[in-house]
Amino acid sequence: MDLFDLVESTLQECLPKDGERPLALCEAMRYAVESGGKRIRPLLCLHSAIAVGGNADDAKYPAAAIEILHNYTLVHDDLPAMDNDVERRGRPTVWKKFGEANAILVGDALLSLAFRVAVKAPRNAAAIVETLGNAGVGVVAGQAEELAWNGGTHDGTEAPDDFIYSHKTADLFVAAAKMGALAGGGCEADVEKIGKYALNLGLAFQYEDDLIDGDGLFSGEEASRRVAVHTEAALAALAGLPGDVAFLKSLASRLAVRTI
Amino acid sequence: MDLFDLVESTLQECLPKDGERPLALCEAMRYAVESGGKRIRPLLCLHSAIAVGGNADDAKYPAAAIEILHNYTLVHDDLPAMDNDVERRGRPTVWKKFGEANAILVGDALLSLAFRVAVKAPRNAAAIVETLGNAGVGVVAGQAEELAWNGGTHDGTEAPDDFIYSHKTADLFVAAAKMGALAGGGCEADVEKIGKYALNLGLAFQYEDDLIDGDGLFSGEEASRRVAVHTEAALAALAGLPGDVAFLKSLASRLAVRTI
Repeated sequence: MDLFDLVESTLQECLPKDGERPLALCEAMRYAVESGGKRIRPLLCLHSAIAVGGNADDAKYPAAAIEILHNYTLVHDDLPAMDNDVERRGRPTVWKKFGEANAILVGDALLSLAFRVAVKAPRNAAAIVETLGNAGVGVVAGQAEELAWNGGTHDGTEAPDDFIYSHKTADLFVAAAKMGALAGGGCEADVEKIGKYALNLGLAFQYEDDLIDGDGLFSGEEASRRVAVHTEAALAALAGLPGDVAFLKSLASRLAVRTI
Repeated sequence: MDLFDLVESTLQECLPKDGERPLALCEAMRYAVESGGKRIRPLLCLHSAIAVGGNADDAKYPAAAIEILHNYTLVHDDLPAMDNDVERRGRPTVWKKFGEANAILVGDALLSLAFRVAVKAPRNAAAIVETLGNAGVGVVAGQAEELAWNGGTHDGTEAPDDFIYSHKTADLFVAAAKMGALAGGGCEADVEKIGKYALNLGLAFQYEDDLIDGDGLFSGEEASRRVAVHTEAALAALAGLPGDVAFLKSLASRLAVRTI
């Protein structure tokens, strides 16, 4: 099976079914996750299993889990009290369509669901849950730090960029990749390599966003330089892995010029 | 160590430390969990390990996890878009003290933290995470159903009480007890007994609330009758367990007359 299809079919398997109670909650959960998106994180997870010499199928539940967790962050990010966004991927956001209270509950349900799905991995389930838990806490820490920075309540003793960027964005990339490597049966050293690759991939991704949007902490020359540095570091981390790293190489290269 | 102290010290071990970044998030996470409360769910967890013949210490992380998860539900329940409560246990609610955006993030971080803590159980970690995941999804389903019912958007084909009550309240009791029994090394039949005890305990607890508040789905005679039925069923489920069930018996009896 094509790996994109594997992600979609596993998500379908794990999400509430049509007609399941409570109707509105289950419909909204599906709406949030079925909204398309490029599925970068779950594909990264599956290909990390392959890169350590394992089987993509063994990583399908962790892959679905990281995508479900990612989508909970989007649902809560869009809330009126957060970014107050009314549209995402060309459709009304969850709170706009289902109401604010339901959107809070949808995000909450997706987050618990992510862990229930991740633990179904056929090996290293405990380490996988721990990795997902670290990412779940970490991504919120990045958001909270950004909130404090934007709101002027930060204590101001330190530049926030590295903390925010590494947590808000890279934590989910790192978790996706490490969970895949763990589910694929990678040895400790290979799991670490995959984690280093993903950290740099995530940072390159975020600095690239600054370049495109022009509203990040960096712009122009400095952002370009950082994208190049982290892309190079990501590619270097793949050296010596036992499996096929073609997708991971291509992902890092394409990300740097944002053709995906 | 006294088991209440074991709960408190494990919570302290698992919560962010003073001065940890992001400062506001970490302070608010501690504020939410350190607010006192009777710690019924974690004590139920520890004593369930004992009831199946195991060691309370083995259940200390699942116990902390269920209390952390319980507190996330309170933080989000209190939000303006939900119950809009400004005070809890005699102090400002998290959103009132730290702002709405931070309260959303605090709840989110506590939920991920709960799973990160639960998976540290020394045995049956995967089954424990699955149990916590079921409860995490279930409690939200109960809340969403209640929301639909109160808001008049429910499809109205079925009385909501059993669904709402068994999920909104009993799911966390069941998870606390089952996780404790699993961490204590209970056999499958004993874990089921403990689960049945906790389900009935949770339902009795909720119907008792109706009696006290007078604003639930039932009141007077019918609520009293249900409290008695479920208390009896909870006590009956304890028969044949290999360990000390004195606390669990006392909990069910005291709950029925709400002296705790």
